[in-house]
Amino acid sequence: MERHIRYDAASRSLILLDQRYLPTREEDFVCRNTDDIVTALQVMVVRGAPTGAGRWSLVSALRGPLPGQASASDTEVAHARAMQLLERYGVLTREAALGEGIVGGFAGVYPVLKALEEARPTAVNLRWAVERMRAAWHSLGRADLATLITYWTNEANRIHRDDIAINRRMGEHGAELIDDGDAVMTHCNAGALATAGYGTALGVIRGAVEAGKNITVIANETRPFLQGACLTAFELHEDGIPVTVACDNACGLLMKRGMVQKVVVGADRIAANGDAANKIGTYSVALLAREHGIPFYVAAPLSTIDRETPDGDHIPIENRTPTEVTHVGATQITPDGVPVFNFAFDVTPAHLIAGIVTEMGVLRAPYRESIAEAFRKAGL
Amino acid sequence: MERHIRYDAASRSLILLDQRYLPTREEDFVCRNTDDIVTALQVMVVRGAPTGAGRWSLVSALRGPLPGQASASDTEVAHARAMQLLERYGVLTREAALGEGIVGGFAGVYPVLKALEEARPTAVNLRWAVERMRAAWHSLGRADLATLITYWTNEANRIHRDDIAINRRMGEHGAELIDDGDAVMTHCNAGALATAGYGTALGVIRGAVEAGKNITVIANETRPFLQGACLTAFELHEDGIPVTVACDNACGLLMKRGMVQKVVVGADRIAANGDAANKIGTYSVALLAREHGIPFYVAAPLSTIDRETPDGDHIPIENRTPTEVTHVGATQITPDGVPVFNFAFDVTPAHLIAGIVTEMGVLRAPYRESIAEAFRKAGL
Repeated sequence: MERHIRYDAASRSLILLDQRYLPTREEDFVCRNTDDIVTALQVMVVRGAPTGAGRWSLVSALRGPLPGQASASDTEVAHARAMQLLERYGVLTREAALGEGIVGGFAGVYPVLKALEEARPTAVNLRWAVERMRAAWHSLGRADLATLITYWTNEANRIHRDDIAINRRMGEHGAELIDDGDAVMTHCNAGALATAGYGTALGVIRGAVEAGKNITVIANETRPFLQGACLTAFELHEDGIPVTVACDNACGLLMKRGMVQKVVVGADRIAANGDAANKIGTYSVALLAREHGIPFYVAAPLSTIDRETPDGDHIPIENRTPTEVTHVGATQITPDGVPVFNFAFDVTPAHLIAGIVTEMGVLRAPYRESIAEAFRKAGL
Repeated sequence: MERHIRYDAASRSLILLDQRYLPTREEDFVCRNTDDIVTALQVMVVRGAPTGAGRWSLVSALRGPLPGQASASDTEVAHARAMQLLERYGVLTREAALGEGIVGGFAGVYPVLKALEEARPTAVNLRWAVERMRAAWHSLGRADLATLITYWTNEANRIHRDDIAINRRMGEHGAELIDDGDAVMTHCNAGALATAGYGTALGVIRGAVEAGKNITVIANETRPFLQGACLTAFELHEDGIPVTVACDNACGLLMKRGMVQKVVVGADRIAANGDAANKIGTYSVALLAREHGIPFYVAAPLSTIDRETPDGDHIPIENRTPTEVTHVGATQITPDGVPVFNFAFDVTPAHLIAGIVTEMGVLRAPYRESIAEAFRKAGL
């Protein structure tokens, strides 16, 4: 599933598999600068909180003159560095990407970071990545650009390796929660298409399959953007993991009939008390799961946990464009002149969550304590 | 909203507003016989449990030779009678319609009734109408066709008047449950387009508006068939009642934020203990309503209550074609080869229902007793 993000050296562009056209068409969306990346995030060419926007901002480093041309400025040094990194590592991690994103001068970094940070307000990883870039930048004080780039690049390479390991460890921890024969429900897409290539919620499912368990997956279609129907079904079907799509409305009936044994979802932000923001409708699934005695798990790396957000009431909820609700493809489903609500996320209160699957193990209630302990153990 | 069902004398056809194309196009679906009507019900040109299929079967009476032609058979007498009734009353009630439906001979009535009865398995009104036709037919023994038609016609006219009165009375009873300033959530379409022209759940809303209350409506879009977005929004907007469409997934967030004060839905079948089958997803709404202390009401005439069904577990749930889930208009949303669930209804347990709005008043728990009492008072 690595083909969904690739760099084209010839055109100096980042080429994204446009997830808006899945599962029926595989079309590319070409990013040539930061504006393109912010657009890609906002119109949901790509999505997924754990991915962050960072890695894509790399492309913004590739505008302007190439090294070897006249007057080698700081900008061109950075360009050259970016090209080397690309050749060596392919697509870079978010820190490296954000690091490279500042080429064009220190003054240019603020609007780039700000635009990325504000592209999606609910997802905390995006803000987290940007914050880390700012912090590193400030801590280095008046270091020259080359030093800064080296610093960020080293950090980025470390995190890139960690990222893959984190996803796999989450999959291993989460797999222990899944029993042979389970039907596992998931909501939205917290899979390969939303992450580096393994997934958080779907990483748990992949982990269970790799552990030799025979499981089936129920993918809630996840209106309005239909990531479950379009993306989760697509990537699991490609991997040969049995998946059935259900309307979000069917959740209650399926649980009532004993057709769901576990629920695993991702998260866009988890508060210090364990309240978890995730795609709109997750809260309904969690409440129904409790009513039917079905364990409801959230799978997310520690970077999704925002300890500065005390609880779910403090998580901003993005309100998106009405057309995502009023139209499906070319089909208009609401009458002209009728307003719609399009909140993109809701918050599942901690008391409905049976466990939070992280790279440090499965955290259990009371979450304030188990989260603090996990951060301590992780040295964060 | 009477334009959604009309009879064309020239072509001897029943012309239905094809609800599959609302809200963007108003196209007709022409029925020339019972098969057409069953098709219209099954593919959801028209829907709505309270409407039943009965009235539409009238058109099946209008096949064959017209009166005044040679050899006036029983069939032609019935045709003549049907034409007179049409001229006098416009579209007839279900009993009259089913009555006329038998023309062509007594032997022909069985398959007609059976086909109608089986068109939609969950809705009880359809079965109820067919049962009444059978009972009346049997009770008359070997009466001649003219007597039978007269009997059914009189009964039909009475029920037609009653029907309107029942809807209005439900609206009046239900209006008392709604407070000035309320935002009322509804699921699916239990309005004019689903009934004789006033509605059950939307009848309560219309009743509240007519009582001078300023209310707003939140119409859940109601996947997979989107009756809320397409139909409820359409008819309320036409009536000037403020309505906002929300994805079904938004229900929890809206309730959590205090944006919903009441929920009113219709029903396709209510069991003797008060368990209510309604459009898929209603159960989730009811559970969320209880979690947030929001009263959840079901509005349905007594004919929707099936006292022979002891509880919700005994209500058959229709499983419909996958394409309603896999496609929205021309847009395919699931990958080829991935199966889907498409259960059309779910059951809301009685303990989540704050009251059942009927023409005999608002029934309260324990429902077995209040339902029995209402039937007794109604002389049923």
